[in-house]
Amino acid sequence: MTQELDNDLLLRALLRQPTPRRPLWLMRQAGRYLPEYRATRARAGSFLAMCTNPEYACEVTLQPLDRYALDAAILFSDILTIPHAMNLGLEFEAGEGPRFARPVRTAADIERLPLPDPARELRYVVDAVSLIRRELRGRVPLIGFAGSPWTVATYMVEGGGSKTFGAIKRMLYGAPRDLHRLLAHLARATILYLNAQIEAGAQAVMLFDTWGGALTPAQYREFSLHYMGEICASLRRESQGRVVPRIVFTKGGGAWLERTAAIGCDAVGVDWTTDLADARRLVGDRVALQGNLDPAALHAPPEVLRAEVLRVLESFGRGPGHVFNLGHGITPDVDPERVAVLVEAVRGYRLDGG
Amino acid sequence: MTQELDNDLLLRALLRQPTPRRPLWLMRQAGRYLPEYRATRARAGSFLAMCTNPEYACEVTLQPLDRYALDAAILFSDILTIPHAMNLGLEFEAGEGPRFARPVRTAADIERLPLPDPARELRYVVDAVSLIRRELRGRVPLIGFAGSPWTVATYMVEGGGSKTFGAIKRMLYGAPRDLHRLLAHLARATILYLNAQIEAGAQAVMLFDTWGGALTPAQYREFSLHYMGEICASLRRESQGRVVPRIVFTKGGGAWLERTAAIGCDAVGVDWTTDLADARRLVGDRVALQGNLDPAALHAPPEVLRAEVLRVLESFGRGPGHVFNLGHGITPDVDPERVAVLVEAVRGYRLDGG
Repeated sequence: MTQELDNDLLLRALLRQPTPRRPLWLMRQAGRYLPEYRATRARAGSFLAMCTNPEYACEVTLQPLDRYALDAAILFSDILTIPHAMNLGLEFEAGEGPRFARPVRTAADIERLPLPDPARELRYVVDAVSLIRRELRGRVPLIGFAGSPWTVATYMVEGGGSKTFGAIKRMLYGAPRDLHRLLAHLARATILYLNAQIEAGAQAVMLFDTWGGALTPAQYREFSLHYMGEICASLRRESQGRVVPRIVFTKGGGAWLERTAAIGCDAVGVDWTTDLADARRLVGDRVALQGNLDPAALHAPPEVLRAEVLRVLESFGRGPGHVFNLGHGITPDVDPERVAVLVEAVRGYRLDGG
Repeated sequence: MTQELDNDLLLRALLRQPTPRRPLWLMRQAGRYLPEYRATRARAGSFLAMCTNPEYACEVTLQPLDRYALDAAILFSDILTIPHAMNLGLEFEAGEGPRFARPVRTAADIERLPLPDPARELRYVVDAVSLIRRELRGRVPLIGFAGSPWTVATYMVEGGGSKTFGAIKRMLYGAPRDLHRLLAHLARATILYLNAQIEAGAQAVMLFDTWGGALTPAQYREFSLHYMGEICASLRRESQGRVVPRIVFTKGGGAWLERTAAIGCDAVGVDWTTDLADARRLVGDRVALQGNLDPAALHAPPEVLRAEVLRVLESFGRGPGHVFNLGHGITPDVDPERVAVLVEAVRGYRLDGG
């Protein structure tokens, strides 16, 4: 566990240190587009069975690394492990996404939410992190993650995915104190959870704020960004003698990058609707940037895909602090051969002194 | 048809002329949240039957005006009337949204698309516009509309709604010339269609670019904004001696407002994720702005809703050129009483010399 990393490009780039080339990983790199992932899932029986079993979680985490020369592993898990550990009755219906049998709607619902102990109810995640670190044997760093309190709360209050967020926005406008209590509770649970991941071996951590973009600018600051800042301020800064970088990603948050960059994170994720050159102008030297190829570019013919990869790399410009990634997760309909084209294109782009 | 308007606040504000108070209308103001709308729909039998029958379309267009002191009517119709007129087999499945039996996927599919004649295949829309104008008797102006070529094309190519736009993005990356041919054809059809609406009596027109926000900045300019600019440049500028203002609205396009404002439109719609003060700084004096209350604020308690309305009005600041609206359409679960609260709050805000 204390072994040196063979490849620490990701950690250096996230801290804006020079690297000879841009490191890369891909959101949802362990996913349904891979036949070996589908095979493991079939053996496990369900998505949730795969998440809650450290051996399966380790297996699928490593699959994309065996295929592609990626510069990081990301823990295979789900942003809903925390509410799952709060006994809300999580189920993943085929093709329907997540559903909670007992959504959180009232002040009393919020009051009675337990605070999951990572060493007990979320032990399977901590064990998966340890196991993955062991199996990685220092090839690349392992990224741990959690959902942002706001994003996790949307599922808990809506009872599942939503397009219009009617239930949680009713709470936001009608009972903002209840919502703040819920978000503060989630932030506390997330701090315990991510610190446990760091203690178990996660070498960087990321907060996924998938639905922050559904808020007004003022609401984003009050109900999402504030709690991500609280989390960043309470995470262990080092592990095994190295800084553990924090990445914050708000999908649809391109207009707010300046604010997001100021909450005490090391890197900010950028989706494909923002040009990286503009993003960099907004955040200056404060943070590294991670992103931002349109995930649909993986459907492009190889020569077009290569050109799009190059466009993203060049839009960031010279200098350190860029981690190549997609602007959102890989979709299940992607041809794994295209991912190989992407990886090769990124690795072939040299910074010559970066 | 040549009668003077009793209330022309909307037209004046869209052209940045002073008004004693801010005009207001609401996207999807004729919609499922109204019991009288649901009753008409039940009589008509289906959504499509209601769209294609001028009497029903007129009836539901006027319903919100009979309930609320709104400053504009908007034609009741759908952004998919044009592809419907191209014989792609449009159906609206209950709870599923639109479906095309014959999606457009190949160059040959695009080649064989007919150019609908508004006087024939889209006659029901033109007749609805004439009928609504007659029934309005000059109370308020009537807004005509169409979908943007990009947005309409997403439905035609995907065969319905989509989250990831895999099919049309495959075309965008793999066969961009085919996509341009499709968009150019849609732009031509839209120009004929909107000019027919203007000739029949529409006093302002709006382009709905619901899915422009799924594109990268460069793609937005090339595949969506360009065609909206073509349309703006080819619309009749006047009708019955008055300028017909053009409104362009890209949902999720807050970062691109400056570009959008430069295509020859009179007003730009803004969704709730952008602050109107920032929007105004971006567009300067070039265009009016329309928006941008979070539609979910209609779930707020009345006093909170009033405060949110006030916040939007004040965020625009003083000076002419603001049309109050939501940042997206009213959702079906809104209580009609809350809409009355909103209307009263906007009307009570005086500009004192604006």
